[in-house]
Amino acid sequence: MNVSRASITRLSNYRRVIFKLKSLGFKRVFSDNLADALGISSVQVRKDFSEFGLTGNKKGGYQISEIITDLDRILGKDMLRKVVVVGCGRMGKTLMGYSGFSGEGIKVVAGFDADPSNIDPEGRIPIMDILEMPEYICKEKIQIAILTVPEHAAPTTIEQLKNMGIKGILNFAPVQAHSNPNCEIRNINIALELENMFYFVNAPA
Amino acid sequence: MNVSRASITRLSNYRRVIFKLKSLGFKRVFSDNLADALGISSVQVRKDFSEFGLTGNKKGGYQISEIITDLDRILGKDMLRKVVVVGCGRMGKTLMGYSGFSGEGIKVVAGFDADPSNIDPEGRIPIMDILEMPEYICKEKIQIAILTVPEHAAPTTIEQLKNMGIKGILNFAPVQAHSNPNCEIRNINIALELENMFYFVNAPA
Repeated sequence: MNVSRASITRLSNYRRVIFKLKSLGFKRVFSDNLADALGISSVQVRKDFSEFGLTGNKKGGYQISEIITDLDRILGKDMLRKVVVVGCGRMGKTLMGYSGFSGEGIKVVAGFDADPSNIDPEGRIPIMDILEMPEYICKEKIQIAILTVPEHAAPTTIEQLKNMGIKGILNFAPVQAHSNPNCEIRNINIALELENMFYFVNAPA
Repeated sequence: MNVSRASITRLSNYRRVIFKLKSLGFKRVFSDNLADALGISSVQVRKDFSEFGLTGNKKGGYQISEIITDLDRILGKDMLRKVVVVGCGRMGKTLMGYSGFSGEGIKVVAGFDADPSNIDPEGRIPIMDILEMPEYICKEKIQIAILTVPEHAAPTTIEQLKNMGIKGILNFAPVQAHSNPNCEIRNINIALELENMFYFVNAPA
Protein backbone atom coordinates (compact mmCIF):
# COMPACT_ATOMS: atom_id res chain seq x y z
CA MET A 1 0.00 0.00 0.00
CA ASN A 2 1.32 3.37 -0.99
CA VAL A 3 0.51 5.60 1.98
CA SER A 4 0.98 9.35 1.72
CA ARG A 5 1.83 11.64 4.61
CA ALA A 6 -1.40 13.53 3.91
CA SER A 7 -3.52 10.43 4.40
CA ILE A 8 -1.76 9.56 7.67
CA THR A 9 -2.33 13.12 8.87
CA ARG A 10 -6.02 12.74 8.05
CA LEU A 11 -6.18 9.42 9.93
CA SER A 12 -4.61 11.11 12.97
CA ASN A 13 -7.14 13.90 12.72
CA TYR A 14 -10.02 11.43 12.40
CA ARG A 15 -8.80 9.70 15.52
CA ARG A 16 -8.58 12.98 17.45
CA VAL A 17 -12.13 14.01 16.49
CA ILE A 18 -13.57 10.53 17.08
CA PHE A 19 -11.87 10.31 20.47
CA LYS A 20 -13.60 13.55 21.48
CA LEU A 21 -16.95 12.28 20.25
CA LYS A 22 -16.42 9.16 22.35
CA SER A 23 -15.74 11.23 25.45
CA LEU A 24 -19.04 13.04 24.76
CA GLY A 25 -20.85 9.70 24.87
CA PHE A 26 -21.30 9.19 21.12
CA LYS A 27 -21.47 5.63 19.84
CA ARG A 28 -21.43 6.18 16.09
CA VAL A 29 -19.87 8.64 13.69
CA PHE A 30 -20.75 9.40 10.07
CA SER A 31 -18.41 10.34 7.26
CA ASP A 32 -20.30 13.64 6.99
CA ASN A 33 -19.46 14.47 10.63
CA LEU A 34 -15.76 13.84 10.06
CA ALA A 35 -15.80 15.74 6.78
CA ASP A 36 -17.29 18.80 8.50
CA ALA A 37 -14.82 18.67 11.38
CA LEU A 38 -11.83 18.46 9.06
CA GLY A 39 -13.11 20.75 6.32
CA ILE A 40 -12.82 18.03 3.66
CA SER A 41 -15.37 16.11 1.59
CA SER A 42 -17.19 13.07 2.92
CA VAL A 43 -16.09 11.24 -0.24
CA GLN A 44 -12.48 11.68 0.93
CA VAL A 45 -13.35 10.32 4.38
CA ARG A 46 -15.02 7.23 2.95
CA LYS A 47 -12.13 6.74 0.52
CA ASP A 48 -9.60 6.86 3.39
CA PHE A 49 -11.64 4.49 5.55
CA SER A 50 -12.03 2.07 2.70
CA GLU A 51 -8.34 2.24 1.81
CA PHE A 52 -7.33 1.33 5.38
CA GLY A 53 -10.00 -1.34 5.75
CA LEU A 54 -12.15 0.56 8.25
CA THR A 55 -15.67 -0.69 7.78
CA GLY A 56 -19.09 0.83 8.29
CA ASN A 57 -22.04 1.61 6.14
CA LYS A 58 -23.39 4.83 4.80
CA LYS A 59 -26.64 4.63 6.72
CA GLY A 60 -25.40 3.30 10.05
CA GLY A 61 -22.09 5.12 10.18
CA TYR A 62 -18.99 3.75 11.89
CA GLN A 63 -18.88 2.24 15.38
CA ILE A 64 -16.69 4.60 17.41
CA SER A 65 -15.12 2.01 19.70
CA GLU A 66 -14.14 -0.25 16.79
CA ILE A 67 -12.81 2.63 14.71
CA ILE A 68 -10.59 3.87 17.54
CA THR A 69 -9.13 0.40 18.05
CA ASP A 70 -8.50 0.07 14.33
CA LEU A 71 -6.99 3.55 13.99
CA ASP A 72 -4.74 2.92 17.00
CA ARG A 73 -3.48 -0.23 15.41
CA ILE A 74 -2.88 1.48 12.06
CA LEU A 75 -1.20 4.48 13.68
CA GLY A 76 0.80 2.33 16.08
CA LYS A 77 -0.82 4.03 19.04
CA ASP A 78 -1.28 0.82 20.96
CA MET A 79 2.42 0.95 21.84
CA LEU A 80 3.88 3.53 24.21
CA ARG A 81 5.92 5.81 22.01
CA LYS A 82 9.10 7.05 23.63
CA VAL A 83 10.97 10.14 22.48
CA VAL A 84 13.97 12.04 23.78
CA VAL A 85 14.55 15.78 23.73
CA VAL A 86 18.03 16.83 22.60
CA GLY A 87 18.88 20.33 23.79
CA CYS A 88 17.22 21.29 27.08
CA GLY A 89 17.11 25.06 26.84
CA ARG A 90 13.87 26.96 27.08
CA MET A 91 12.13 25.35 24.11
CA GLY A 92 13.43 21.88 25.01
CA LYS A 93 12.15 22.15 28.58
CA THR A 94 8.79 23.45 27.35
CA LEU A 95 8.42 20.43 25.09
CA MET A 96 9.51 18.09 27.92
CA GLY A 97 6.58 19.44 29.91
CA TYR A 98 4.15 19.60 26.99
CA SER A 99 0.77 18.31 28.11
CA GLY A 100 -0.44 17.51 24.59
CA PHE A 101 1.70 14.37 24.24
CA SER A 102 0.11 12.08 26.83
CA GLY A 103 -3.27 11.88 25.09
CA GLU A 104 -1.44 10.64 22.00
CA GLY A 105 0.48 7.91 23.79
CA ILE A 106 3.74 9.81 23.38
CA LYS A 107 6.14 10.08 26.30
CA VAL A 108 9.31 12.14 26.60
CA VAL A 109 11.52 9.74 28.55
CA ALA A 110 14.74 11.77 28.78
CA GLY A 111 16.45 14.99 27.85
CA PHE A 112 20.08 15.51 26.88
CA ASP A 113 22.20 18.63 27.05
CA ALA A 114 25.85 19.58 26.68
CA ASP A 115 25.69 22.32 29.33
CA PRO A 116 26.41 20.90 32.82
CA SER A 117 24.14 23.53 34.42
CA ASN A 118 21.15 22.08 32.58
CA ILE A 119 21.78 18.50 33.65
CA ASP A 120 19.33 17.08 36.18
CA PRO A 121 19.36 13.27 36.32
CA GLU A 122 16.92 13.26 39.26
CA GLY A 123 14.23 15.36 37.55
CA ARG A 124 10.75 14.04 36.84
CA ILE A 125 12.09 13.55 33.31
CA PRO A 126 15.86 13.11 33.72
CA ILE A 127 18.20 15.45 31.83
CA MET A 128 21.52 13.75 31.17
CA ASP A 129 24.86 14.68 29.70
CA ILE A 130 24.75 14.43 25.94
CA LEU A 131 27.74 12.07 26.12
CA GLU A 132 25.43 9.49 27.69
CA MET A 133 22.99 9.68 24.79
CA PRO A 134 24.38 6.95 22.47
CA GLU A 135 24.19 4.28 25.17
CA TYR A 136 20.74 5.41 26.32
CA ILE A 137 19.29 5.42 22.82
CA CYS A 138 20.65 1.97 22.13
CA LYS A 139 19.53 0.50 25.47
CA GLU A 140 16.05 2.05 25.43
CA LYS A 141 15.55 1.44 21.69
CA ILE A 142 14.68 5.11 21.09
CA GLN A 143 13.67 5.76 17.50
CA ILE A 144 12.62 9.40 17.55
CA ALA A 145 14.24 12.56 18.88
CA ILE A 146 13.01 16.13 19.24
CA LEU A 147 15.89 18.45 18.40
CA THR A 148 15.97 21.79 20.22
CA VAL A 149 19.69 22.59 20.25
CA PRO A 150 20.95 26.04 19.17
CA GLU A 151 21.44 26.61 15.47
CA HIS A 152 25.24 26.25 15.55
CA ALA A 153 25.02 22.82 17.19
CA ALA A 154 22.27 21.46 14.96
CA PRO A 155 24.18 20.05 11.95
CA THR A 156 26.64 18.04 14.08
CA THR A 157 23.92 16.81 16.41
CA ILE A 158 21.77 15.67 13.49
CA GLU A 159 24.71 13.67 12.11
CA GLN A 160 25.29 12.12 15.53
CA LEU A 161 21.64 11.16 15.90
CA LYS A 162 21.65 9.55 12.45
CA ASN A 163 24.77 7.61 13.37
CA MET A 164 23.14 6.40 16.59
CA GLY A 165 20.36 4.85 14.53
CA ILE A 166 17.68 7.45 15.26
CA LYS A 167 15.01 7.03 12.58
CA GLY A 168 13.04 10.23 12.98
CA ILE A 169 13.92 13.77 14.07
CA LEU A 170 11.47 16.58 14.75
CA ASN A 171 13.82 19.50 14.24
CA PHE A 172 13.08 22.86 15.88
CA ALA A 173 16.55 24.27 15.18
CA PRO A 174 16.45 26.88 12.40
CA VAL A 175 18.39 24.81 9.88
CA GLN A 176 16.87 23.05 6.90
CA ALA A 177 17.88 19.45 7.53
CA HIS A 178 17.32 16.78 4.92
CA SER A 179 15.79 13.33 5.38
CA ASN A 180 17.51 10.27 4.03
CA PRO A 181 16.11 6.75 3.58
CA ASN A 182 17.22 5.79 7.10
CA CYS A 183 16.14 8.94 8.91
CA GLU A 184 13.01 11.02 8.38
CA ILE A 185 13.48 14.66 9.43
CA ARG A 186 10.67 17.14 9.81
CA ASN A 187 11.72 20.77 10.15
CA ILE A 188 9.58 23.09 12.24
CA ASN A 189 11.03 26.52 11.66
CA ILE A 190 8.79 28.89 13.57
CA ALA A 191 10.40 32.10 12.31
CA LEU A 192 10.14 30.84 8.74
CA GLU A 193 6.46 30.01 9.18
CA LEU A 194 5.80 33.55 10.41
CA GLU A 195 7.88 35.06 7.63
CA ASN A 196 5.93 33.07 5.11
CA MET A 197 2.69 34.26 6.62
CA PHE A 198 3.72 37.92 6.49
CA TYR A 199 4.41 37.52 2.82
CA PHE A 200 1.02 36.01 2.11
CA VAL A 201 -0.84 38.52 4.25
CA ASN A 202 0.80 41.41 2.41
CA ALA A 203 0.92 39.94 -1.07
CA PRO A 204 -1.19 41.77 -3.64
CA ALA A 205 -4.27 39.67 -4.36
CA MET B 1 2.22 36.24 -10.68
CA ASN B 2 0.97 33.01 -9.17
CA VAL B 3 3.21 32.47 -6.16
CA SER B 4 3.14 29.18 -4.29
CA ARG B 5 3.88 28.74 -0.62
CA ALA B 6 6.70 26.39 -1.62
CA SER B 7 8.43 29.07 -3.67
CA ILE B 8 8.15 31.63 -0.85
CA THR B 9 9.60 29.06 1.54
CA ARG B 10 12.50 28.56 -0.85
CA LEU B 11 13.06 32.34 -1.11
CA SER B 12 13.16 32.56 2.69
CA ASN B 13 15.64 29.73 2.78
CA TYR B 14 17.80 31.37 0.10
CA ARG B 15 17.83 34.54 2.15
CA ARG B 16 18.83 32.67 5.31
CA VAL B 17 21.73 30.92 3.55
CA ILE B 18 22.85 34.04 1.67
CA PHE B 19 22.76 36.09 4.87
CA LYS B 20 25.14 33.61 6.47
CA LEU B 21 27.47 33.72 3.48
CA LYS B 22 27.50 37.51 3.78
CA SER B 23 28.46 37.31 7.44
CA LEU B 24 31.35 35.05 6.39
CA GLY B 25 32.59 37.79 4.06
CA PHE B 26 31.35 36.33 0.78
CA LYS B 27 30.50 38.76 -2.01
CA ARG B 28 28.94 36.45 -4.58
CA VAL B 29 26.85 33.32 -4.52
CA PHE B 30 26.16 30.77 -7.25
CA SER B 31 23.00 28.83 -7.93
CA ASP B 32 24.98 25.63 -7.33
CA ASN B 33 25.87 26.82 -3.80
CA LEU B 34 22.24 27.48 -2.96
CA ALA B 35 21.12 24.23 -4.54
CA ASP B 36 23.57 22.28 -2.37
CA ALA B 37 22.56 24.09 0.82
CA LEU B 38 18.86 23.47 0.24
CA GLY B 39 19.12 20.01 -1.28
CA ILE B 40 17.41 21.07 -4.50
CA SER B 41 18.56 21.41 -8.11
CA SER B 42 20.37 24.49 -9.38
CA VAL B 43 17.82 24.63 -12.20
CA GLN B 44 15.14 25.23 -9.56
CA VAL B 45 17.23 28.01 -7.97
CA ARG B 46 17.71 29.78 -11.29
CA LYS B 47 14.03 29.35 -12.13
CA ASP B 48 13.01 30.94 -8.81
CA PHE B 49 15.45 33.82 -9.20
CA SER B 50 14.30 34.47 -12.73
CA GLU B 51 10.63 34.31 -11.72
CA PHE B 52 11.13 36.95 -9.03
CA GLY B 53 13.34 39.15 -11.20
CA LEU B 54 16.56 38.47 -9.29
CA THR B 55 19.37 38.93 -11.76
CA GLY B 56 22.84 37.50 -12.10
CA ASN B 57 24.68 35.40 -14.62
CA LYS B 58 25.74 31.83 -14.61
CA LYS B 59 29.42 32.57 -14.67
CA GLY B 60 29.55 35.51 -12.29
CA GLY B 61 26.87 34.39 -9.86
CA TYR B 62 24.67 36.75 -7.91
CA GLN B 63 25.86 39.80 -5.95
CA ILE B 64 25.06 38.99 -2.32
CA SER B 65 24.30 42.53 -1.19
CA GLU B 66 21.90 43.16 -4.06
CA ILE B 67 20.19 39.81 -3.67
CA ILE B 68 19.57 40.38 0.05
CA THR B 69 18.02 43.79 -0.62
CA ASP B 70 15.83 42.32 -3.35
CA LEU B 71 14.79 39.32 -1.26
CA ASP B 72 13.97 41.59 1.70
CA ARG B 73 11.76 43.68 -0.52
CA ILE B 74 10.02 40.61 -1.97
CA LEU B 75 9.58 39.01 1.43
CA GLY B 76 8.52 42.29 3.07
CA LYS B 77 11.47 42.12 5.45
CA ASP B 78 12.30 45.79 5.16
CA MET B 79 9.39 46.48 7.51
CA LEU B 80 9.46 45.56 11.18
CA ARG B 81 6.99 42.76 11.51
CA LYS B 82 4.99 42.83 14.72
CA VAL B 83 3.21 39.84 16.16
CA VAL B 84 1.29 39.18 19.37
CA VAL B 85 1.19 35.99 21.41
CA VAL B 86 -2.27 34.95 22.55
CA GLY B 87 -2.12 32.63 25.55
CA CYS B 88 0.90 33.18 27.79
CA GLY B 89 1.34 29.79 29.41
CA ARG B 90 4.56 27.87 29.10
CA MET B 91 4.66 27.62 25.31
CA GLY B 92 3.48 31.22 24.88
CA LYS B 93 6.20 32.56 27.16
CA THR B 94 8.82 30.42 25.42
CA LEU B 95 7.83 31.90 22.06
CA MET B 96 7.79 35.44 23.54
CA GLY B 97 11.44 34.90 24.44
CA TYR B 98 12.37 33.02 21.26
CA SER B 99 15.71 34.28 20.03
CA GLY B 100 15.17 33.13 16.44
CA PHE B 101 12.75 35.93 15.55
CA SER B 102 15.00 38.98 15.74
CA GLY B 103 17.25 37.94 12.86
CA GLU B 104 14.15 37.70 10.68
CA GLY B 105 12.85 41.18 11.53
CA ILE B 106 10.00 39.70 13.56
CA LYS B 107 9.15 41.17 16.96
CA VAL B 108 6.70 39.92 19.55
CA VAL B 109 5.27 43.21 20.81
CA ALA B 110 2.72 41.95 23.35
CA GLY B 111 1.17 38.92 24.95
CA PHE B 112 -2.44 38.44 26.06
CA ASP B 113 -3.88 36.06 28.62
CA ALA B 114 -7.20 35.50 30.37
CA ASP B 115 -5.60 34.40 33.63
CA PRO B 116 -4.91 37.42 35.93
CA SER B 117 -1.88 35.65 37.44
CA ASN B 118 -0.16 35.64 34.04
CA ILE B 119 -0.69 39.35 33.37
CA ASP B 120 2.42 41.52 33.56
CA PRO B 121 2.02 44.88 31.81
CA GLU B 122 5.46 46.03 32.98
CA GLY B 123 7.38 43.05 31.57
CA ARG B 124 10.02 43.41 28.87
CA ILE B 125 7.26 42.30 26.54
CA PRO B 126 4.00 43.33 28.25
CA ILE B 127 1.37 40.68 28.97
CA MET B 128 -2.08 42.22 29.06
CA ASP B 129 -5.60 41.09 29.85
CA ILE B 130 -7.16 39.45 26.82
CA LEU B 131 -10.03 41.95 27.08
CA GLU B 132 -7.59 44.67 26.02
CA MET B 133 -6.63 42.80 22.87
CA PRO B 134 -9.20 44.19 20.36
CA GLU B 135 -8.18 47.79 21.03
CA TYR B 136 -4.46 46.96 20.97
CA ILE B 137 -4.67 45.06 17.69
CA CYS B 138 -6.59 47.88 16.06
CA LYS B 139 -4.33 50.66 17.38
CA GLU B 140 -1.05 48.87 16.63
CA LYS B 141 -2.27 47.50 13.30
CA ILE B 142 -1.32 43.94 14.24
CA GLN B 143 -1.88 41.49 11.40
CA ILE B 144 -0.48 38.26 12.75
CA ALA B 145 -0.98 36.36 16.01
CA ILE B 146 0.69 33.31 17.50
CA LEU B 147 -1.96 31.23 19.23
CA THR B 148 -0.86 29.24 22.29
CA VAL B 149 -4.08 29.01 24.30
CA PRO B 150 -5.26 25.66 25.70
CA GLU B 151 -7.23 23.41 23.39
CA HIS B 152 -10.65 24.21 24.90
CA ALA B 153 -10.14 27.97 24.39
CA ALA B 154 -8.82 27.72 20.84
CA PRO B 155 -11.98 27.70 18.67
CA THR B 156 -13.51 30.77 20.38
CA THR B 157 -10.22 32.65 20.37
CA ILE B 158 -9.69 31.95 16.69
CA GLU B 159 -13.14 33.35 15.90
CA GLN B 160 -12.37 36.45 18.00
CA LEU B 161 -9.05 37.00 16.23
CA LYS B 162 -10.73 36.72 12.84
CA ASN B 163 -13.38 39.22 13.93
CA MET B 164 -10.67 41.64 15.08
CA GLY B 165 -9.26 41.63 11.57
CA ILE B 166 -6.23 39.42 12.24
CA LYS B 167 -5.03 38.17 8.87
CA GLY B 168 -2.73 35.36 9.89
CA ILE B 169 -2.62 32.92 12.81
CA LEU B 170 0.20 30.54 13.64
CA ASN B 171 -1.77 28.04 15.69
CA PHE B 172 -0.01 25.85 18.26
CA ALA B 173 -3.25 24.71 19.90
CA PRO B 174 -4.04 21.08 19.01
CA VAL B 175 -7.12 21.88 16.93
CA GLN B 176 -7.22 21.77 13.16
CA ALA B 177 -8.30 25.33 12.31
CA HIS B 178 -9.25 26.30 8.78
CA SER B 179 -8.09 29.32 6.79
CA ASN B 180 -10.58 31.51 5.02
CA PRO B 181 -9.92 34.17 2.35
CA ASN B 182 -9.48 36.84 5.05
CA CYS B 183 -7.39 34.87 7.48
CA GLU B 184 -4.58 32.44 6.77
CA ILE B 185 -4.13 29.86 9.52
CA ARG B 186 -1.15 27.53 9.83
CA ASN B 187 -1.51 24.72 12.30
CA ILE B 188 1.58 23.46 14.10
CA ASN B 189 0.43 20.39 15.96
CA ILE B 190 3.55 19.01 17.59
CA ALA B 191 1.94 15.82 18.89
CA LEU B 192 0.48 15.14 15.45
CA GLU B 193 3.88 15.62 13.80
CA LEU B 194 5.42 13.08 16.16
CA GLU B 195 2.55 10.68 15.70
CA ASN B 196 2.96 10.94 11.96
CA MET B 197 6.65 10.24 12.30
CA PHE B 198 6.12 7.15 14.45
CA TYR B 199 3.86 5.80 11.75
CA PHE B 200 6.42 6.35 9.01
CA VAL B 201 9.31 4.99 11.05
CA ASN B 202 7.41 1.80 11.80
CA ALA B 203 5.62 1.38 8.49
CA PRO B 204 6.63 -1.69 6.53
CA ALA B 205 8.80 -0.56 3.63
